[in-house]
Amino acid sequence: MDAVEMRRRVSNATVARLATIGRDGRPHIVPITFAFGDDELYFAVDHKPKRTFNLQRLRNIEANPAVSVLVDHYENDWSKLWWVRVDGQARIVNAGERRDQAIALLRARYEHYRSLPPGGPVVAVAVEKLSGWSAT
Amino acid sequence: MDAVEMRRRVSNATVARLATIGRDGRPHIVPITFAFGDDELYFAVDHKPKRTFNLQRLRNIEANPAVSVLVDHYENDWSKLWWVRVDGQARIVNAGERRDQAIALLRARYEHYRSLPPGGPVVAVAVEKLSGWSAT
Repeated sequence: MDAVEMRRRVSNATVARLATIGRDGRPHIVPITFAFGDDELYFAVDHKPKRTFNLQRLRNIEANPAVSVLVDHYENDWSKLWWVRVDGQARIVNAGERRDQAIALLRARYEHYRSLPPGGPVVAVAVEKLSGWSAT
Repeated sequence: MDAVEMRRRVSNATVARLATIGRDGRPHIVPITFAFGDDELYFAVDHKPKRTFNLQRLRNIEANPAVSVLVDHYENDWSKLWWVRVDGQARIVNAGERRDQAIALLRARYEHYRSLPPGGPVVAVAVEKLSGWSAT
């Protein structure tokens, strides 16, 4: 799978999974919705006090910015399986033009964000490496 | 979401995502098919020389057995979203009764494994913690 095809598959996916390293040194994994720009991948954090899970991923990134994001396809016919992984460095963007641009990209992709824009920070993942695999 | 419900959702899922920590200290993430026993989660590794991705996850686990496994549900209606995460310690089982039991569980779940049993080792993840979230 070439880089153009990997980017296409990431761009078309609606959900991905984010792996970070916790402050306890253990791997941590959550699903994310996201938007894929030219060299960055963005996801938003809803700033609701009860959503401690969202806060944990921010604390992890503050302590260790290395992240891995996976987009994949599963079905019972295993000849159709594929995945694309984005490895990169994450940074938290609390305000400013970059955050506004990321929120615009997210609102263009997700109906939920059009009715209720995310109020918290955005995480921008600078893409360092794309890897891909397909069964065929 | 209580522990019974978390276990039910993991047991019913056909695909999960596995996060490990690479020998470079970075998070690493891949999709896995799996079976969920009483206190362990199992996945198999196809022992084909070209599948270096599979070997990487084994090398990661040998160096650092802490893993995080995520099962989730995504759809456009975000009120239906949920996920369950299994944090545990992984160990590689190359042969013996435990491996045979795990392979039997995997073959019961996946048609692909009934026609072509996995030839490589099994990874057994001893469950330390179950976490769950649901939008409603």
